[in-house]
Amino acid sequence: MSENCIFCGIVAGDIPSTRVAETDRAIAFMDIAPATPGHLLVIPREHSTDLREAAPEDLIAATTLAQSLVGRVIERLDDATGANLLSCIGADAWQSVFHTHLHVIPRYPNDPMVLPWHPHAGDLDEIKATAAKLS
Amino acid sequence: MSENCIFCGIVAGDIPSTRVAETDRAIAFMDIAPATPGHLLVIPREHSTDLREAAPEDLIAATTLAQSLVGRVIERLDDATGANLLSCIGADAWQSVFHTHLHVIPRYPNDPMVLPWHPHAGDLDEIKATAAKLS
Repeated sequence: MSENCIFCGIVAGDIPSTRVAETDRAIAFMDIAPATPGHLLVIPREHSTDLREAAPEDLIAATTLAQSLVGRVIERLDDATGANLLSCIGADAWQSVFHTHLHVIPRYPNDPMVLPWHPHAGDLDEIKATAAKLS
Repeated sequence: MSENCIFCGIVAGDIPSTRVAETDRAIAFMDIAPATPGHLLVIPREHSTDLREAAPEDLIAATTLAQSLVGRVIERLDDATGANLLSCIGADAWQSVFHTHLHVIPRYPNDPMVLPWHPHAGDLDEIKATAAKLS
């Protein structure tokens, strides 16, 4: 547990949340500023700053719970036809709470979500040069 | 392997890709229409339509490889300060290739990515009613 971490407070029950599922290593609760109806957050109980630092068993626990909730939102929420799983690592990637979390965002036909980038073909030479740094 | 699946073709090597990492169950290759420089796709070798249908060992393999690549892009790509992990489940959630995949999108200060929703406080009664359907 990390002091002053809102999500650790939610795990401990010191900060209220609407919990919908839990396992021994992870919990899922409602986002109070939902992108769409049913927006959930899945977090490991154990504190880590972001996904890079999550222990393997915590990453697996959170991902497995998120997978089951993706199925659940599509099955149980009227008109939901899909979902996005999103994790934000770092402030420049929209992370605002520094405890590893996965967003599960139900999707509906014609909902207000917008793709965060404009797809267009990249420069293949640049892509290959970048790949060389990552290989 | 699923016939006519582009990503199965990439796994098999029948369709070219720039691969940067692989394990016995998953591969990672460059997205040819990158949202930002270094945009990667991580997929299980085994075909499944979307994340809901991925076998546990394939989900774990893809997620674990994605986690290591999140670290790698931030360490190795100049100016990268963060990353997003994104999976799209269903056409209404922007899925266009129906083989489970995770986007790893490096993030840079002031890059052109936009948050796909407008955060604002939700209606707590509605949120609790939705939670009841998901619990």
